[in-house]
Amino acid sequence: MSLSVKHLLGIRDLTRQDIEQIFQTADEFKAVLQRPIKKVPTLRDTTIVNVFFENSTRTRISFELAEKRLGADVINFSASGSSVSKGETLIDTVHNILSMKVDMVVMRHSASGAPHFLSRHIDVPIVNAGDGINEHPTQALLDAFSIREKLGGVEGKKIAICGDIMHSRVALSNIYALKKLGAEVTVVGPPTLIPKHLAEALGVNVTYNMREALEWADVANVLRIQLERQNMPLFSSLREYNLAYGVTRELLDSLKKEVVIMHPGPINRGVELDSAVADGNESIILQQVENGVAIRMAVLYLLSGRKG
Amino acid sequence: MSLSVKHLLGIRDLTRQDIEQIFQTADEFKAVLQRPIKKVPTLRDTTIVNVFFENSTRTRISFELAEKRLGADVINFSASGSSVSKGETLIDTVHNILSMKVDMVVMRHSASGAPHFLSRHIDVPIVNAGDGINEHPTQALLDAFSIREKLGGVEGKKIAICGDIMHSRVALSNIYALKKLGAEVTVVGPPTLIPKHLAEALGVNVTYNMREALEWADVANVLRIQLERQNMPLFSSLREYNLAYGVTRELLDSLKKEVVIMHPGPINRGVELDSAVADGNESIILQQVENGVAIRMAVLYLLSGRKG
Amino acid sequence: MSLSVKHLLGIRDLTRQDIEQIFQTADEFKAVLQRPIKKVPTLRDTTIVNVFFENSTRTRISFELAEKRLGADVINFSASGSSVSKGETLIDTVHNILSMKVDMVVMRHSASGAPHFLSRHIDVPIVNAGDGINEHPTQALLDAFSIREKLGGVEGKKIAICGDIMHSRVALSNIYALKKLGAEVTVVGPPTLIPKHLAEALGVNVTYNMREALEWADVANVLRIQLERQNMPLFSSLREYNLAYGVTRELLDSLKKEVVIMHPGPINRGVELDSAVADGNESIILQQVENGVAIRMAVLYLLSGRKG
Repeated sequence: MSLSVKHLLGIRDLTRQDIEQIFQTADEFKAVLQRPIKKVPTLRDTTIVNVFFENSTRTRISFELAEKRLGADVINFSASGSSVSKGETLIDTVHNILSMKVDMVVMRHSASGAPHFLSRHIDVPIVNAGDGINEHPTQALLDAFSIREKLGGVEGKKIAICGDIMHSRVALSNIYALKKLGAEVTVVGPPTLIPKHLAEALGVNVTYNMREALEWADVANVLRIQLERQNMPLFSSLREYNLAYGVTRELLDSLKKEVVIMHPGPINRGVELDSAVADGNESIILQQVENGVAIRMAVLYLLSGRKG
Repeated sequence: MSLSVKHLLGIRDLTRQDIEQIFQTADEFKAVLQRPIKKVPTLRDTTIVNVFFENSTRTRISFELAEKRLGADVINFSASGSSVSKGETLIDTVHNILSMKVDMVVMRHSASGAPHFLSRHIDVPIVNAGDGINEHPTQALLDAFSIREKLGGVEGKKIAICGDIMHSRVALSNIYALKKLGAEVTVVGPPTLIPKHLAEALGVNVTYNMREALEWADVANVLRIQLERQNMPLFSSLREYNLAYGVTRELLDSLKKEVVIMHPGPINRGVELDSAVADGNESIILQQVENGVAIRMAVLYLLSGRKG
Repeated sequence: MSLSVKHLLGIRDLTRQDIEQIFQTADEFKAVLQRPIKKVPTLRDTTIVNVFFENSTRTRISFELAEKRLGADVINFSASGSSVSKGETLIDTVHNILSMKVDMVVMRHSASGAPHFLSRHIDVPIVNAGDGINEHPTQALLDAFSIREKLGGVEGKKIAICGDIMHSRVALSNIYALKKLGAEVTVVGPPTLIPKHLAEALGVNVTYNMREALEWADVANVLRIQLERQNMPLFSSLREYNLAYGVTRELLDSLKKEVVIMHPGPINRGVELDSAVADGNESIILQQVENGVAIRMAVLYLLSGRKG
């Protein structure tokens, strides 16, 4: 049992069979996580380094938990205070870590393509934990896995991806995953944040109207507005964004149908998602987080080449 | 064998029997810590997350050592560089961590009541590692445990708590613990730093005269002056504070009796405590630190519900 | 099997037999690191604290990997955010850590002599991971071990240490190690960065001409220029330093002999070392990194007093 790829750099490189194999493996690990003893010795004696050139506590902890539950030894490396700040090149840093004979690398980097670059120079499996505005493959896998769990499958389902599509690696990875699994995808958000030509090339529908998207959709995957990127030139305030593109209780209640609500976190409550929605019955946001650990266990296990 | 509480939020919630049970369990763990092999497999396969929204290397390391010596897997989460700085709410952060199926949470937070708030929303045991100016229960337990070890018991002993009582969670937790165990407590410090009505309500004596307190006491638990809080409006300098409320070698030697000296650390040497006192024969400061690990092992073990 | 010292504070304190014993032990651990399972249970149930008062991700990760591969429990303590920043003294910090009954301390500190000071106050073995401009003994051990591995031995070999000798703990520890092992040593760099009287006292040759040094040497250990220290008053720019003292491809090719190239990292590419040299056939830089883990495993094992 193994994947068609050596590294998990992006969903773009995976076959549908790869994704389904990851899901089946994650099913087994998810069952393990319901037990009082949540640990398996599958990757005992394996050393995994989490190399985070960009902060992400939530993703790092999810990977660290996945690694420790597989019995691996974990080393955390973060850019702050590291020799990266002494001007060392990315490849020197990683070569050094690899010379210490680690068995696997999980990497987040603010530059798109950074893990792909590394994969041409190193031998051990790399898992991309987010690279710039390119891909965030484990997020897309856990999102699709959560849809499959909630709706019984992904094939033929209608998924709206909502918000800042342009700058979102989550959006791009989700589109690849959902299309490979046979879902229909619509992207919805302000015109300035939707790359229309790319959307067409990827075979997804585009709308700028939130109500229209939600009326069509089985699931709304609402992206985080990156406040720190100030990428909303058309909106004079967050309140205005909320009025046009926020998912509110009123909006959902007016639909006369149920839409499953997802969000990759962290949520800006009152901006892209109201609290009453984030915490409402339609929300599977916390299940996404739970599934993230099982999905990451599955990816690490399958890439390790170990037999259970 | 179990406590009357599900979480350790504060000493206020504990019965005397709870405290005595923690002490008896800590006795056993302290014996383990004297062995060459200091590790027991009691919490093997348990994952504990240390969520520190406020820096405290010393408390975090003490908990981490306790956790690792019980065989637990440990995840450290600190606020700096986390999604907390991206504006995520406390409850979202913790919900996310819990969705990853951790078994126990140790939390420090600068807001009084933060762990109590959480305990109403989550299922796994929470240990309060200090919340604002409210409580620091494991510190009070290790303090009382150290008095019991040094003097053979706590009942009927006279304890002076010295310094900034007003802003100290250590003071409040100590008062609860010592009173429940039958000690007599006096608080001593500058009038502006002693909440007199609260002291009366808690049944402790108040004095503003350090010599008087020490002449009365079996034990002086000298608090750290929080230099960063600049809470000494009546003192023009640290030197002046030291003259009025610092515990000096000369003061101790003039008492014609022995007073056991305690301090929760880190010490401002030459401010609240002179070096000759901190390192003197009366000091049990380092025993407090050692006992901290045993006490934390006991608390984690008892809350886990595991059988040894 | 044990060393003549209780702590590894510096190479200066070691006998030649100590160094050879460390090398033989490292040979065994290096063989372990080539296996699929790279872990041995030698220090199981041992707790090691890495106390880094100065940032060094690379050295910390190397020690952490060594410790985890020996089966030890690892606690990381870094000065940022610690009680050190609250004004606690070094000795209080370390006393506190030791009161928690740890078994070994690895310490980096910006003050020369800091670990020596501590070794007079504490009982457990201390490994100096770099102290100010004094020593960095594990770096010198891994450097000499890498020369031995590449050239079959160190005795009689000609080693040029290149760059900022004055401020380099790597240079000083290397000189001690190489002289004890019978090598000839030349230091080369700008006159202002070479302490000539010290060089003479240590029995090493001095030159200010890079070509001359390289024509003489079997090995060039090229030090990192500490850009952050701005210790190059004679050079108006890094480019100028590179012209006079950088090891370039052209310079190496013009020598009509092979010189083994070493660097302790992180490399300033294009300053002290050109990329074509750092990544060239003569370079054993990544082997140094790999050997660092084996050397640190050997040092920790030998100081622990444990039997394999």
